[in-house]
Amino acid sequence: MVYINDHFLQLQTSYLFSDINRKVTAFRKENPDARIIRMGIGDVSRPLTPAVITALHQAVEEMGNADTFRGYGPEQGYEFLIERIIQHDYKSRGIELDLDEVFVNDGAKSDLGNIGDILSQNNRVAITDPVYPVYIDTNVMSGRSGTFCDGQWSDIIYLPCERDNHFVPKLPDVCPDVIYLCYPNNPTGTTLTRTELKQWVDYARNHGSLILFDSAYEAYITESEVPHSIYEIQGAKEVAIEFRSFSKTAGFTGLRCGYTVIPKALKARTKGGQEVALNPLWNRRQCTKFNGTPYIVQRAAEAVYSEQGEKETLETIKYYLTNASIVRKGLEEAGLEAYGGVNAPYIWLKTPEGMDSWKMFDRLLHECHIVCTPGVGFGPSGEGFLRLTAFGRREDTEEAIERIVRWNI
Amino acid sequence: MVYINDHFLQLQTSYLFSDINRKVTAFRKENPDARIIRMGIGDVSRPLTPAVITALHQAVEEMGNADTFRGYGPEQGYEFLIERIIQHDYKSRGIELDLDEVFVNDGAKSDLGNIGDILSQNNRVAITDPVYPVYIDTNVMSGRSGTFCDGQWSDIIYLPCERDNHFVPKLPDVCPDVIYLCYPNNPTGTTLTRTELKQWVDYARNHGSLILFDSAYEAYITESEVPHSIYEIQGAKEVAIEFRSFSKTAGFTGLRCGYTVIPKALKARTKGGQEVALNPLWNRRQCTKFNGTPYIVQRAAEAVYSEQGEKETLETIKYYLTNASIVRKGLEEAGLEAYGGVNAPYIWLKTPEGMDSWKMFDRLLHECHIVCTPGVGFGPSGEGFLRLTAFGRREDTEEAIERIVRWNI
Repeated sequence: MVYINDHFLQLQTSYLFSDINRKVTAFRKENPDARIIRMGIGDVSRPLTPAVITALHQAVEEMGNADTFRGYGPEQGYEFLIERIIQHDYKSRGIELDLDEVFVNDGAKSDLGNIGDILSQNNRVAITDPVYPVYIDTNVMSGRSGTFCDGQWSDIIYLPCERDNHFVPKLPDVCPDVIYLCYPNNPTGTTLTRTELKQWVDYARNHGSLILFDSAYEAYITESEVPHSIYEIQGAKEVAIEFRSFSKTAGFTGLRCGYTVIPKALKARTKGGQEVALNPLWNRRQCTKFNGTPYIVQRAAEAVYSEQGEKETLETIKYYLTNASIVRKGLEEAGLEAYGGVNAPYIWLKTPEGMDSWKMFDRLLHECHIVCTPGVGFGPSGEGFLRLTAFGRREDTEEAIERIVRWNI
Repeated sequence: MVYINDHFLQLQTSYLFSDINRKVTAFRKENPDARIIRMGIGDVSRPLTPAVITALHQAVEEMGNADTFRGYGPEQGYEFLIERIIQHDYKSRGIELDLDEVFVNDGAKSDLGNIGDILSQNNRVAITDPVYPVYIDTNVMSGRSGTFCDGQWSDIIYLPCERDNHFVPKLPDVCPDVIYLCYPNNPTGTTLTRTELKQWVDYARNHGSLILFDSAYEAYITESEVPHSIYEIQGAKEVAIEFRSFSKTAGFTGLRCGYTVIPKALKARTKGGQEVALNPLWNRRQCTKFNGTPYIVQRAAEAVYSEQGEKETLETIKYYLTNASIVRKGLEEAGLEAYGGVNAPYIWLKTPEGMDSWKMFDRLLHECHIVCTPGVGFGPSGEGFLRLTAFGRREDTEEAIERIVRWNI
């Protein structure tokens, strides 16, 4: 008799986006002429840049010719791409990595979920709050969450990121084995400085914890005190895995490419207490359960690092960051309190005193015809906030902000 | 203190392909002028067909234009592809499927491995022998294998596929919860008839077992009594998941696309005995831990089903099947005993009486300058066999067979 993994039945259904859609649909029905501007989407809107498109066409041609056709590639990714990643994203910042410390994948989400395969089910997990739901749900699936009660999981250590702590999580009292950090952060758009991140690296070193560092928004960093990689912090190679993605960097949300860094110095323990390197375990996992990223997609990612590709990519990032700046300044001009948007494509808007996330969502929709994401959808500490994104078109972003500035909240 | 998943340390290292490479390298050093023909590779050699290349270029163009750019797609795959799959691969054979019963992925290997996520760790697993190593290794990783002793895993039920049973596995005495079947088979190249497969479906229905049906070589079926899908067998929707791939069908080994069918009628049990449908569990798993297949790759897969694409794909399959036929007939002409190659790109060659797989491998390399894969590398029941593949170039295949026919074994 075949049995399921019962932990799947513990998963909570998120009604966040369906609730948003339901409300927007109802509003549209009552107000067919309203021009709704969507500032809730977490997807990019700018197309792939010409350098990437050219690389794709070239790689496609290779695949149509018997002499240049590529079949199975290495599950870890092609060296031509890994070399560029190391050179551009690490060596340029004084970080040395070997080729076999970088694993190319189809985007950060898969690896952030699958990394649990190589870790014991008994590890205690700490997660910042508010948070990207994948961190929690994948741990529920593997039985690390305990039971759900009053909006929280009993075995998860929550690390609140609130106005009062400037969205910098406090070191926990109960020691976690695995710590998820995402900086620049989704959804708050805030960052950690080098000094703040060093506290976490030191904590992990002192307690034998593992940091899973989600760095999907690294390309948006503009301030010099914000580290681009956790490995800028001394000793981080011994405690951290870094997850990066081309999705928000180069508009690859539909093309799918990212990478994960697992330094060979990073170790964990067996039940018996023996130290074991994680790198070969992940390598075995990927060779057994992953097919590798398509050759043509890896050529596209390589093109992001070409002189022309880099220039074009920076232009796109600048476009979104200018949107972010327009949003942040506009909100403040309207007398509202907002965070993020300086090193991230997300702005975290505080609701006026006493108004909850959904109430403010409803008012923004009905009075300004703007759709955003209620912060409470990202976790309990998100209550009283809204997430606005900078991925829209410039003219829409400007108009949305004009509406908010004129708005009598 | 962070702990690893200790099951990873149980994994056996396969030296199969490194041993082959070591032997070939040594031979090449001693015989620099020998023209070695490789018949061991499981990768295709023909490039993507023109219809696929055209579709890729078109989709790439779309991705470079703001009006047609596609960001995040549905994790389950685009409907335009799922509709084609259902129409072409199922409806045409009288099998009805809903759109949400098909999950597009990046190739069969990932899903064959990840499917374990939604199943209890305590399920007892049965695996045919010889076998594609991924089935075993992924179960070792999730703790379903027991301990390794004398070349076998204590908790795995082995289903020997040998000459004596015509490579048709016998129904097991100990009842498995999960049964892996791969037909047409890798590595033996043999098949099950509709009647033989029905026995397994009936067995699974009677015992509440789940069949994981790997059908990656379906496109090579030529004989009418061989089913193209397990769902041709009545009642299979209640007991089977089917895994398909464009890799060997349309040369997608470097492009990466496949799909998994999980009928909504398929149920398993909770620890408490309650029946639960597997389809929504897998959907949740994919939405949380998979990013979806690149849009451009899904357009390429769609083109395989176009009139022109289908014609071109059939030509490629015919090319490989002609190779297979040349190999099979040539081996028999040389007085050797061979199986497979009729409904599959693999030929399973019996070594002459008393010769083991590696001895025969060495002789083929040294005396005929041909590289193949020793059958014992696929499991204990592979001893005394070699796997030859039909994916080479026609002229190489013909020359290899001429050498074997002339060979004084």
